[in-house]
Amino acid sequence: MSAPIDFYFDFSSPYGYLASTQIDALAERHGRKVEWRPFVLGAAFKVTGQKPLVEQPLRGPYHERDFARSARLLGVPFRMPAGFPFFALGASRAVYWLGGEKGKAFAKAVYHAAFGEGRDVTVLATLTELAVGLGVTGLAEGIEFAETKASLRDATDQAIARGVFGSPFFFVDGEPFWGHDRLAQVEIWLARGGW
Amino acid sequence: MSAPIDFYFDFSSPYGYLASTQIDALAERHGRKVEWRPFVLGAAFKVTGQKPLVEQPLRGPYHERDFARSARLLGVPFRMPAGFPFFALGASRAVYWLGGEKGKAFAKAVYHAAFGEGRDVTVLATLTELAVGLGVTGLAEGIEFAETKASLRDATDQAIARGVFGSPFFFVDGEPFWGHDRLAQVEIWLARGGW
Repeated sequence: MSAPIDFYFDFSSPYGYLASTQIDALAERHGRKVEWRPFVLGAAFKVTGQKPLVEQPLRGPYHERDFARSARLLGVPFRMPAGFPFFALGASRAVYWLGGEKGKAFAKAVYHAAFGEGRDVTVLATLTELAVGLGVTGLAEGIEFAETKASLRDATDQAIARGVFGSPFFFVDGEPFWGHDRLAQVEIWLARGGW
Repeated sequence: MSAPIDFYFDFSSPYGYLASTQIDALAERHGRKVEWRPFVLGAAFKVTGQKPLVEQPLRGPYHERDFARSARLLGVPFRMPAGFPFFALGASRAVYWLGGEKGKAFAKAVYHAAFGEGRDVTVLATLTELAVGLGVTGLAEGIEFAETKASLRDATDQAIARGVFGSPFFFVDGEPFWGHDRLAQVEIWLARGGW
């Protein structure tokens, strides 16, 4: 088994959600695993000077259309949550608190709740419910552990140090790919070992 | 023959160049023609608050890598011109002065010179040479006609009014698609008549 694909994402990212519905199956087709790494996109925006797409003239309306259109093409449910864009600090920390396969399953559940069902995933009750659905209790306490908080901070610092400026962002054997629409290239890169 | 695809682009756009090597053949596969419409991307940036990618921290280095990588995948030559980003006012006007198939052939020649060969297409001598190569003389005068200037201004105003904020940007039967990486969706849209 070769090195895992690093998948950086912020939960407040519709294109990250779309990628979350595809990346594991894509990786598996090429004998790879995926490391799911939530980070705080706002911290990267401070470096690049960007702001959320939907707050930008012309770009906002286009992307709202494109989110839904791309979801329809993939055949995945899509619904914009009312409070978008949001800051999913608790959800992001929870992924690191849970770790491993549980963390990944929780991340998928959060993305599905946020953009598949339009739920508010900044609310602790929602996160608790999703955790319980995976057989996990103690989330409210877990996301407050100093160690949990440090994990998200470290992941965010590391992401920016590696040049991550958007969500989703992938590294395949060190090669960076930004955006859900780069998954086609990710797949070719995996198949050919680069080009 | 159905309605043509509108292809909006700025010459100072590496992704526009990549699209310029693909769009006519793509359209032809679906019995469509393409209207090539240069516009002034800087005018759209004034509306959106964006600036050229290469001037942005993190985003700049990534995109320089991505331009070259995407070109390699397509098998087209790629070379960044020294003065990038540039303002190709004369080249853009010349496309409207020439019009029709001549304008399109000239636009392809300009893009190829700029990003296939890394030449400076803001220089009148380069444009004159490219025009002569197509059997056209009088470019220096033609791009100064009030009517020519008005064509580019009108195209830019119209682009922004239609929501164009980046290059390349396509409309297929009114449906907007932004970016070279949306050509895969453009092709599916043409094949299925939307989804």
